[in-house]
Amino acid sequence: QWKGAPEVILGATKETAQIISMAHGLLEGTGRAIISRLRPESILPLQTEFQAYTVRTLAAARAMVIYRPDYIRKQTGGHIGVISAGTSDIPVAEEAALIAEEMGCRITTIYDVGVAGLHRLFGPLRELLAQEVDVIIVAAGMDGALPSVVTGLVPVPVIGLPTSIGYGLGGNGVAALLTMLQTCAPGLSVVNIDNGVGAGITAALIANRVAQAREHQSQ
Amino acid sequence: QWKGAPEVILGATKETAQIISMAHGLLEGTGRAIISRLRPESILPLQTEFQAYTVRTLAAARAMVIYRPDYIRKQTGGHIGVISAGTSDIPVAEEAALIAEEMGCRITTIYDVGVAGLHRLFGPLRELLAQEVDVIIVAAGMDGALPSVVTGLVPVPVIGLPTSIGYGLGGNGVAALLTMLQTCAPGLSVVNIDNGVGAGITAALIANRVAQAREHQSQ
Amino acid sequence: QWKGAPEVILGATKETAQIISMAHGLLEGTGRAIISRLRPESILPLQTEFQAYTVRTLAAARAMVIYRPDYIRKQTGGHIGVISAGTSDIPVAEEAALIAEEMGCRITTIYDVGVAGLHRLFGPLRELLAQEVDVIIVAAGMDGALPSVVTGLVPVPVIGLPTSIGYGLGGNGVAALLTMLQTCAPGLSVVNIDNGVGAGITAALIANRVAQAREHQSQ
Amino acid sequence: QWKGAPEVILGATKETAQIISMAHGLLEGTGRAIISRLRPESILPLQTEFQAYTVRTLAAARAMVIYRPDYIRKQTGGHIGVISAGTSDIPVAEEAALIAEEMGCRITTIYDVGVAGLHRLFGPLRELLAQEVDVIIVAAGMDGALPSVVTGLVPVPVIGLPTSIGYGLGGNGVAALLTMLQTCAPGLSVVNIDNGVGAGITAALIANRVAQAREHQSQ
Amino acid sequence: QWKGAPEVILGATKETAQIISMAHGLLEGTGRAIISRLRPESILPLQTEFQAYTVRTLAAARAMVIYRPDYIRKQTGGHIGVISAGTSDIPVAEEAALIAEEMGCRITTIYDVGVAGLHRLFGPLRELLAQEVDVIIVAAGMDGALPSVVTGLVPVPVIGLPTSIGYGLGGNGVAALLTMLQTCAPGLSVVNIDNGVGAGITAALIANRVAQAREHQSQ
Amino acid sequence: QWKGAPEVILGATKETAQIISMAHGLLEGTGRAIISRLRPESILPLQTEFQAYTVRTLAAARAMVIYRPDYIRKQTGGHIGVISAGTSDIPVAEEAALIAEEMGCRITTIYDVGVAGLHRLFGPLRELLAQEVDVIIVAAGMDGALPSVVTGLVPVPVIGLPTSIGYGLGGNGVAALLTMLQTCAPGLSVVNIDNGVGAGITAALIANRVAQAREHQSQ
Amino acid sequence: QWKGAPEVILGATKETAQIISMAHGLLEGTGRAIISRLRPESILPLQTEFQAYTVRTLAAARAMVIYRPDYIRKQTGGHIGVISAGTSDIPVAEEAALIAEEMGCRITTIYDVGVAGLHRLFGPLRELLAQEVDVIIVAAGMDGALPSVVTGLVPVPVIGLPTSIGYGLGGNGVAALLTMLQTCAPGLSVVNIDNGVGAGITAALIANRVAQAREHQSQ
Amino acid sequence: QWKGAPEVILGATKETAQIISMAHGLLEGTGRAIISRLRPESILPLQTEFQAYTVRTLAAARAMVIYRPDYIRKQTGGHIGVISAGTSDIPVAEEAALIAEEMGCRITTIYDVGVAGLHRLFGPLRELLAQEVDVIIVAAGMDGALPSVVTGLVPVPVIGLPTSIGYGLGGNGVAALLTMLQTCAPGLSVVNIDNGVGAGITAALIANRVAQAREHQSQ
Ligand SMILES: Nc1ncnc2c1ncn2[C@@H]1O[C@H](COP(=O)(O)O)[C@@H](O)[C@H]1O
Ligand SMILES: Nc1ncnc2c1ncn2[C@@H]1O[C@H](COP(=O)(O)O)[C@@H](O)[C@H]1O
Ligand SMILES: Nc1ncnc2c1ncn2[C@@H]1O[C@H](COP(=O)(O)O)[C@@H](O)[C@H]1O
Ligand SMILES: Nc1ncnc2c1ncn2[C@@H]1O[C@H](COP(=O)(O)O)[C@@H](O)[C@H]1O
Ligand SMILES: [Mg+2]
Ligand SMILES: [Mg+2]
Ligand SMILES: [Mg+2]
Ligand SMILES: [Mg+2]
Ligand SMILES: [Mg+2]
Ligand SMILES: [Mg+2]
Ligand SMILES: [Mg+2]
Ligand SMILES: [Mg+2]
Repeated sequence: QWKGAPEVILGATKETAQIISMAHGLLEGTGRAIISRLRPESILPLQTEFQAYTVRTLAAARAMVIYRPDYIRKQTGGHIGVISAGTSDIPVAEEAALIAEEMGCRITTIYDVGVAGLHRLFGPLRELLAQEVDVIIVAAGMDGALPSVVTGLVPVPVIGLPTSIGYGLGGNGVAALLTMLQTCAPGLSVVNIDNGVGAGITAALIANRVAQAREHQSQ
Repeated sequence: QWKGAPEVILGATKETAQIISMAHGLLEGTGRAIISRLRPESILPLQTEFQAYTVRTLAAARAMVIYRPDYIRKQTGGHIGVISAGTSDIPVAEEAALIAEEMGCRITTIYDVGVAGLHRLFGPLRELLAQEVDVIIVAAGMDGALPSVVTGLVPVPVIGLPTSIGYGLGGNGVAALLTMLQTCAPGLSVVNIDNGVGAGITAALIANRVAQAREHQSQ
Repeated sequence: QWKGAPEVILGATKETAQIISMAHGLLEGTGRAIISRLRPESILPLQTEFQAYTVRTLAAARAMVIYRPDYIRKQTGGHIGVISAGTSDIPVAEEAALIAEEMGCRITTIYDVGVAGLHRLFGPLRELLAQEVDVIIVAAGMDGALPSVVTGLVPVPVIGLPTSIGYGLGGNGVAALLTMLQTCAPGLSVVNIDNGVGAGITAALIANRVAQAREHQSQ
Repeated sequence: QWKGAPEVILGATKETAQIISMAHGLLEGTGRAIISRLRPESILPLQTEFQAYTVRTLAAARAMVIYRPDYIRKQTGGHIGVISAGTSDIPVAEEAALIAEEMGCRITTIYDVGVAGLHRLFGPLRELLAQEVDVIIVAAGMDGALPSVVTGLVPVPVIGLPTSIGYGLGGNGVAALLTMLQTCAPGLSVVNIDNGVGAGITAALIANRVAQAREHQSQ
Repeated sequence: QWKGAPEVILGATKETAQIISMAHGLLEGTGRAIISRLRPESILPLQTEFQAYTVRTLAAARAMVIYRPDYIRKQTGGHIGVISAGTSDIPVAEEAALIAEEMGCRITTIYDVGVAGLHRLFGPLRELLAQEVDVIIVAAGMDGALPSVVTGLVPVPVIGLPTSIGYGLGGNGVAALLTMLQTCAPGLSVVNIDNGVGAGITAALIANRVAQAREHQSQ
Repeated sequence: QWKGAPEVILGATKETAQIISMAHGLLEGTGRAIISRLRPESILPLQTEFQAYTVRTLAAARAMVIYRPDYIRKQTGGHIGVISAGTSDIPVAEEAALIAEEMGCRITTIYDVGVAGLHRLFGPLRELLAQEVDVIIVAAGMDGALPSVVTGLVPVPVIGLPTSIGYGLGGNGVAALLTMLQTCAPGLSVVNIDNGVGAGITAALIANRVAQAREHQSQ
Repeated sequence: QWKGAPEVILGATKETAQIISMAHGLLEGTGRAIISRLRPESILPLQTEFQAYTVRTLAAARAMVIYRPDYIRKQTGGHIGVISAGTSDIPVAEEAALIAEEMGCRITTIYDVGVAGLHRLFGPLRELLAQEVDVIIVAAGMDGALPSVVTGLVPVPVIGLPTSIGYGLGGNGVAALLTMLQTCAPGLSVVNIDNGVGAGITAALIANRVAQAREHQSQ
Repeated sequence: QWKGAPEVILGATKETAQIISMAHGLLEGTGRAIISRLRPESILPLQTEFQAYTVRTLAAARAMVIYRPDYIRKQTGGHIGVISAGTSDIPVAEEAALIAEEMGCRITTIYDVGVAGLHRLFGPLRELLAQEVDVIIVAAGMDGALPSVVTGLVPVPVIGLPTSIGYGLGGNGVAALLTMLQTCAPGLSVVNIDNGVGAGITAALIANRVAQAREHQSQ
């Protein structure tokens, strides 16, 4: 935990039994276990195994958090904006939001405001900036154009989170990732396709650092 | 010429002597020779060879048009908007504009209005639409996000023209092309990277067809 | 609707319940809901949910249109040719045709006339041109050679629509798309692999613009 | 020589001195040395070194053949058609023709008949078939569509020879090669981009085998 | 049939009903229907539908031939060698052999003689050459090295047939195809990965042409 | 400047005259012009043109900053670590450092501490953390492994900056970028290959935000 | 067996019946059959068929070894270290270990010590070197950084074994393989993604050669 | 030097002055400096700078070794075979040989024995094995088939060294590397394209380890 980031169990490459055993380990150690990229067939057995615990399941995002009954999540005061271009990008955006929340941050979401309907973006974005957001995550698949547009409009760092939405050449998030890497709007850095965990942890590390400085100030 | 599109000599793969001989052929036939992707070393010899003719050279765009003194370009009444995202994309945008102009269209250009400075786009774009533009070409390199943004804002067909500006992964226009292919704004079709000739001819075929229908109307 | 193009629900990345809810929204707003890339398991539930409506299902094309009983489709007078290279390309061609039809265009189809049997192409193509077609969509997988051939023969703009037919290197439509991007026949622009929706909307925007000019004329 | 194919010195990766020494070796052994992909700076030194020999240089094709004065090329009676799509593809087509000629075949060429001007193809192709051609090589860059078109029209085996003409995505012959691999016209096999040597040898092995059978017949 | 090559129904992209209808068409026309890349679920319905006919099924090769009871296959006298590198490559090799056989050729097969056990190759290959083979097909996946080795050893044209055997980088036949395209043994041309149909037709066109010349001789 | 990030002139795609004119514009507006990716031939003319100004040239990094004599750079109090894996990565690391410095940050550099000599890393890294660094940029080419190693060791956000050092498959920075995108150490986000400008601006936006919060505190 | 490496049956591309028949062949010949990449549905039938034999099944590694009851495995004295970066990489590491063990080597494993938790590596690695290991296999997916780190720390040859763990760009082992190919730590050679068999045989050939020299010494 | 491998200066990315300074450092420390991938323009200045030293230059391999006059190279007794497929692959093979020699190994070379002339391989290979070679490096470009062939024939570990010889798809060593990764001959591991340094060090680490065991034996 020295890193300031929780360990996350990558569910996709593990047997349910292995996940259960690793989750027990984390629950004993830290009071909480976070599992990402769960295979559908693992969800029910996990919920059954941990029915004495508080279990939070994000089905679409394929993520789960298990808390020891006495677990209390700290609040850091960091504030993160999470924006999605399409409705199809919401599950990945939610994975990022979940991880950042588990790291103590406050999350404000703005969904389905991609470049095909850009007019829906400006108002909510202005409000977000007014609320002193520390960093913004922008999830986008297909053309992946939204993160560049947002970065061109805001004075805070932006994390581009490409999603695997899209088919044909450049599909499965490839075009989205490449266009973010090629951005002409400075201040955008990226994580890999569908890597909500990485985006969430990076954003929370930034927001929590700012929050910590703020806190010292208010003392 | 039945196609409605002029023959264009691809200069890059030909010796100067070969270009001169092909240009003479076209000048005799149609009164005009258009050469694209000229190698720098071919420009001076061509200007010397054709000094008795009217020669129009676009150095940055590496394009040249040679007219027989008596050549008169027809005006079709088609109207095409040509937009560039960065200043680096202007030469390719100009190649497209040149070809479309040679096909009789009126061109309105809006340059350097990419997503890093989107506020510069809205005004000129509104004006362009007010002038009843028939089709818009949007040239963009690097992130190639502008064509999707424009297509989301206008009710006319848009031709995406990726340029080879940009380095690193997805550089040389690859990310720009892929993001255009993956556009979530319907009404965008694309040509290959740096293919100003293709974009110009396609746009002019569209604009001239609309213009032709308009003309019949005004008779 | 200001765009002149209908909103299309992308079925592939959504739960059936989500599609139903979005369809109800569109039906209330515009009297019609178009869904593309439906997963097979969504078809029956949708037909059941909307049995009080008129439902048009294109099973092979995985597309569905739902109309409010009182919905009347406008006719714009635009005319689009839709050509397929093989019989395997027909579903994608039909997706494009469906969208363009929903945008008010008249469609003429020519199917299974690819370069392995080119002699079957010339007659129907000549007829199509005689009927004053405004724009032609050519769907082709595998070698994707047909759009270049057609573009070389006609004086109207052509939209290349690569399909994911084909296996091995360059399979799944990649070779088809690349060969269209590399066309040496000017006047061809392309959309992404299997993007019948994009091809249909682009073609309809063109055809409707021409039709509008024609209409003004006949007034 | 048991293979029925001559050894060809690949000039591009060798110092001039090394080429000269290998050429002397071949001239002593077989009376002839063939060099392909010569670097421009090697041509003059080679011509000087071998001025006592008969030297045939194809500058554009970057190929050279050196004959001992007493060398007499055999005639096998094999007949090969060599077709090029564009004028830019002619040098590679000529490399193929040269090698096949050196293997004793008769060559008939048809140049600049690509799919953008298909009507120029049909006449000469009919004539070629009337002359009992044994195999056809079709060189094409950019869209690489011509080999599939030709294969769909003729009853003899066709060798597709992609050339590195073309820029942008799929440029440098990649799209051309992929579309040939994806051909829907049966009877087309391919060699690598710009590999005129490979195409020429393959075609000559086929033609010479047929010719040999024919010869036996006429005895 | 003028092409000298039979029409082959590509089963993978078609519904069983569509295949049945196309097969009936071919059976009426030519007395025989060949289907390739059959989906497993289509096999039984086809066998049931055509039980009054002679049906030849190659399950592993996913191919089927249906003959009208009175159908008699011609024998051309062409002779083709079909070699496979591994046992996993045999189904694709068999698809090629089947098509060539249906075009009237005699087939000699040599299986499982790849470069990891090269000593098993030399004997059978020498025998094959002794039997005056006209052309050789070499099917190989994984490293795809065998076609180059064989081409270096024989004086007849070789068709490289890469198979999709192999995993990891360059897997699914990509490395096999690329190494064949890069061959340093002249006389090798290739078809796409798993394209047994293409290899078979190309080889048969060659062999039948030689056979025809031979026949004329023996008259 | 509202963005908090300076405009940077991309020198690589512009004529010297164009750069001079854009630099004059920036100098008038903000008192400073930053130019990146300068072509070697532009350096001297720029130094001559602006000899009345203070000019800072980083030859290896191909970057230049020109200051109006009265220009005073603000100090924000942000602190950024810049680490390079090899000596070959230093120029790109310096480009990032320069931009961040121009945005008012303090920079601490640690160079040539890649995974082939990891023992050289630990001491300086511990010191860096002791100095309360806000964010770390890690530049690495070839295997690009260092950013993941550093991210696994520190509790601050890390920006991975792949460089184009390296040849063969995955060369020119591709493997470096991919391995960073695939990092199993959470908290690493990346910019494109050689994009020191992007890394520098992103890091400075983060550091300046933290610094701003700190400042408020100390008031 | 002259190669010093056992024949391994590749299960993935074979029917169960085919595997059984090949296994019987090997058991008769050498007393042992090794099968890799088994499809899950083949495991039970094989265990049933060979219940009179000793069967060793590694379910996660999808590998099986069948021994004739009288089979005695030789011990060569070679010593191989097998390291995995993550827990997800263990099955591939185990495949390599199994093969090397079957070739008579002693195996020491160190699992789950990747760069995100590097401190877990140093102790066990020091111990391994103290035990005079002859060669080390390092299995890693995702970022694939561990083999370079290990190679930088040890004086013995290292075999990099990339695994297909990881998603997004560079996923399925591609980034892992590329970063190993680009290593800046000399002494690392690699096998393909998930190729535990190749890594195991290579390592065992090395270790056994050293062991053989050692043995001669101790006589 | 603890690694048992010398430090090698990568010349390609460094200024001559930087190389000279690093070479002086190594000469002081170890008495020897090895430089690889030298740019041609660095060779003469280096020879001039170090004329008081013994300088060994391999021009084609772009490598240089500088020895302090008193430097004595150790002999380990390790024995390495270095094989090249073509004459064009010799420079890369020589780079590998040079490095291994500098690590104290004895080298036996066999050049120009690729699969197009396989008969030239068998004799020399048999001799090499008779001389108790410890490990074999096989350098090959174009089809890269030779390493698999050699690995199938010998009982020692083989290092595949792909070279950048070859053009077209899979050119510049890509096909060669992929085919080696896909080898069906167990016991082959690879280094990156043109990485003679990596191949040489890996082979020497193996050979020296075996030699060390042998030495102990003879005491
Ligand atoms: N080294 C660099 N890398 C990436 N982007 C840059 C670099 N230098 C400048 N830029 C940006 O690239 C864009 C170039 O646009 P333009 O000069 O208008 O074609 C601007 O948005 C610059 O901020
Ligand atoms: N800049 C350009 N981009 C794409 N195609 C072009 C360009 N200029 C000319 N062409 C076309 O490229 C083809 C070249 O054919 P050829 O000159 O016969 O090799 C012709 O079909 C031209 O119309
Ligand atoms: N969704 C995710 N995306 C990327 N990395 C993850 C994800 N979930 C867990 N991880 C990390 O992936 C690694 C998995 O390693 P292991 O489980 O040991 O194979 C750990 O470092 C996790 O922190
Ligand atoms: N233009 C060419 N394209 C492809 N292969 C060639 C060409 N010219 C010669 N070769 C072959 O390339 C190989 C070069 O081998 P080497 O010269 O020994 O490196 C020989 O097998 C030649 O037959
Ligand atoms: Mg939406
Ligand atoms: Mg600009
Ligand atoms: Mg058909
Ligand atoms: Mg032409
Ligand atoms: Mg076998
Ligand atoms: Mg260093
Ligand atoms: Mg782990
Ligand atoms: Mg040679």
